[in-house]
Amino acid sequence: KKTFKFTVLAGDGIGPEVMDQALRVLECACKGEDFELSYSRHDVGGAAIDSQGEALPKSTVDACSQADAILFGSVGGPKWENLPPAKQPERAALLPLRKIFKLFANIRPGLLYPQLTDASPLKKERIPNGIDIVCIRELTGGIYFGEKKTYKTEDGEDAACDTMSYKVSEIERIAEVAAQTAMSRGKKIYSIDKANVLQTSVLWRKTITAFMEKNYPEIELKHLYVDNAAMQLARDPNQFDVLVTENMFGDILSDEMAVICGSLGMLCSASLGDGSNSLGLKFGLYEPAGGTAPDIAGKGIANPCAQILSAAMMMRYSFGRDDIAKKIEAAVRKAVCDGVRTGDIAFGNAAVSTKEMADAIIERL
Amino acid sequence: KKTFKFTVLAGDGIGPEVMDQALRVLECACKGEDFELSYSRHDVGGAAIDSQGEALPKSTVDACSQADAILFGSVGGPKWENLPPAKQPERAALLPLRKIFKLFANIRPGLLYPQLTDASPLKKERIPNGIDIVCIRELTGGIYFGEKKTYKTEDGEDAACDTMSYKVSEIERIAEVAAQTAMSRGKKIYSIDKANVLQTSVLWRKTITAFMEKNYPEIELKHLYVDNAAMQLARDPNQFDVLVTENMFGDILSDEMAVICGSLGMLCSASLGDGSNSLGLKFGLYEPAGGTAPDIAGKGIANPCAQILSAAMMMRYSFGRDDIAKKIEAAVRKAVCDGVRTGDIAFGNAAVSTKEMADAIIERL
Ligand SMILES: CC(C)[C@H](C(=O)O)[C@@H](O)C(=O)O
Ligand SMILES: CC(C)[C@H](C(=O)O)[C@@H](O)C(=O)O
Repeated sequence: KKTFKFTVLAGDGIGPEVMDQALRVLECACKGEDFELSYSRHDVGGAAIDSQGEALPKSTVDACSQADAILFGSVGGPKWENLPPAKQPERAALLPLRKIFKLFANIRPGLLYPQLTDASPLKKERIPNGIDIVCIRELTGGIYFGEKKTYKTEDGEDAACDTMSYKVSEIERIAEVAAQTAMSRGKKIYSIDKANVLQTSVLWRKTITAFMEKNYPEIELKHLYVDNAAMQLARDPNQFDVLVTENMFGDILSDEMAVICGSLGMLCSASLGDGSNSLGLKFGLYEPAGGTAPDIAGKGIANPCAQILSAAMMMRYSFGRDDIAKKIEAAVRKAVCDGVRTGDIAFGNAAVSTKEMADAIIERL
Repeated sequence: KKTFKFTVLAGDGIGPEVMDQALRVLECACKGEDFELSYSRHDVGGAAIDSQGEALPKSTVDACSQADAILFGSVGGPKWENLPPAKQPERAALLPLRKIFKLFANIRPGLLYPQLTDASPLKKERIPNGIDIVCIRELTGGIYFGEKKTYKTEDGEDAACDTMSYKVSEIERIAEVAAQTAMSRGKKIYSIDKANVLQTSVLWRKTITAFMEKNYPEIELKHLYVDNAAMQLARDPNQFDVLVTENMFGDILSDEMAVICGSLGMLCSASLGDGSNSLGLKFGLYEPAGGTAPDIAGKGIANPCAQILSAAMMMRYSFGRDDIAKKIEAAVRKAVCDGVRTGDIAFGNAAVSTKEMADAIIERL
């Protein structure tokens, strides 16, 4: 029997409680299959700062190195908010994980079921059929990882700088991820840049254009400036199908997209490396788009769907079982559309607990 | 009699038609005052490319140098869309103007009258009283004007880089503009950065914090990461009062804010330098937030309010006549709230022409 091996980094706040339910759902979804799930839990984030003095302990990294994927919860919370920004759990855990495991492609579905349009801040008539788009963000390049420094100007003033850089191969590999995503959907890509101002964006635009013409001539590729994209997302999100953009723009736009999709409790993400896990598939880190929700942590009422859907993405990309991913996604959708809802999407109606939500999903697998 | 001298750069598309009406309103608003308006018209943008081969001819710059302010329309359009991004009218006119005239502070009110909430993409219950916030964007620093280059990597790959840099004095002067704006409003500032990733943001946060503590202890200052700000703006814009941020973040967030405020036809902006015009006040460039709207250009149906409100801002900041600015703003508000509306804000009801809209505003001055 094959083994699908992953680490579980549940983290802080609601992380552990939604993770428990995601694991239950995952195990049920995989019962009777020709493989085994094997996972181990490790500290990360605030919990790891408290127990081991750092947000990403070496033991956690080592465990991840031996696995084929990481199922991540969420990290951070008020307890660690007064740490300097660069030491805060989210940053201090996620950026090194992305770099160490070369997770260059972040895939975030912006999916809002038509039954949940009330959850979106947008007027219903703007999104009569919900929202269904995908944002692909470059995750290991750009200004996040470029040279940074503080210095004195000639006049002796304090100053600082950050460098944004991209090379062709970095752009091509994220273009490939965008293209594959587009081929499985509407074959339409919007590439977002700021080519009227940035030299990296000029290279970005030129490289993606040439890449698509050569490899995916059937895909319709359009370009949009990032400021315009921020407008269009809030005006009419469904004019997009697949969006692809560089690291920093993707940080901003994918969060804007998330809020427009209503409930963070429903949104998952995948951060993928190349095809080098022990199955020859993509190593990846899978996590909900939302945070640790300290206000409801420990109450057993958080929405586990984002975590469950993240586990589904893991089955798809790191373990090659699109069928199981689809089965889980369908069960989540069915449960929610049957009206089983945690408080964040109940709109004042009776809400179920985290565990009851998972129960309802398991029933529908 | 004093003379208030400005150049009129109407530009392309609807630019000239809304400009004509803005000038009419401005003249009526200033009739009988103890100063004279003196202005001259100059080519800019696509029109200037066509007539003189460049988006910002030297003659235009020279005229602006002799004036105390610039009233700007909008530039660009399909005719010039196939020019390389860096040569497109908007970019090729605006960036040099900002640099030449040291227009380091961009002020964009995000104002949506309660009567116009239908125009916003946001649900009415999110903005029951409309929207009233202000975005202050640093405009001559950061990655826009840092070193840019293309180069070959060690492996011979094409690559590009852009540099984002800030020094203390650049941050302090925009902090001062934000503080003054906040003092005239709710005394609350959100500073937006990415201090968990960028060194420039660390300096930004530190400098603004120290500046406010020292000079404006009565202002409540909070900090937000840019990705979170992009979420919060779309979720609940009125939690903000004054936002202040660096150039690129401001480009993105101010456009997101604009779309959330419903109609671009209602939004104005000011780009201010220091107090060095011939009146000892701030030299500034005043322009609508929207574009040239090629689809309706020449039809006489565009909304002139943004241009009119831009002229009001000019009276306030470059000519020191807050009273006249307020008079114009009140007249625009009254006309719109009395139901006089151009097509963009008529919601299917009878719409007036550009000129009729201006007439209605003049009647209410
Ligand atoms: C924590 C932070 C560094 C991170 C980012 O900006 O990439 C987060 O906002 C995200 O989007 O995953
Ligand atoms: C035209 C472009 C360079 C400009 C900018 O990005 O600053 C525009 O988008 C704006 O916001 O005024």
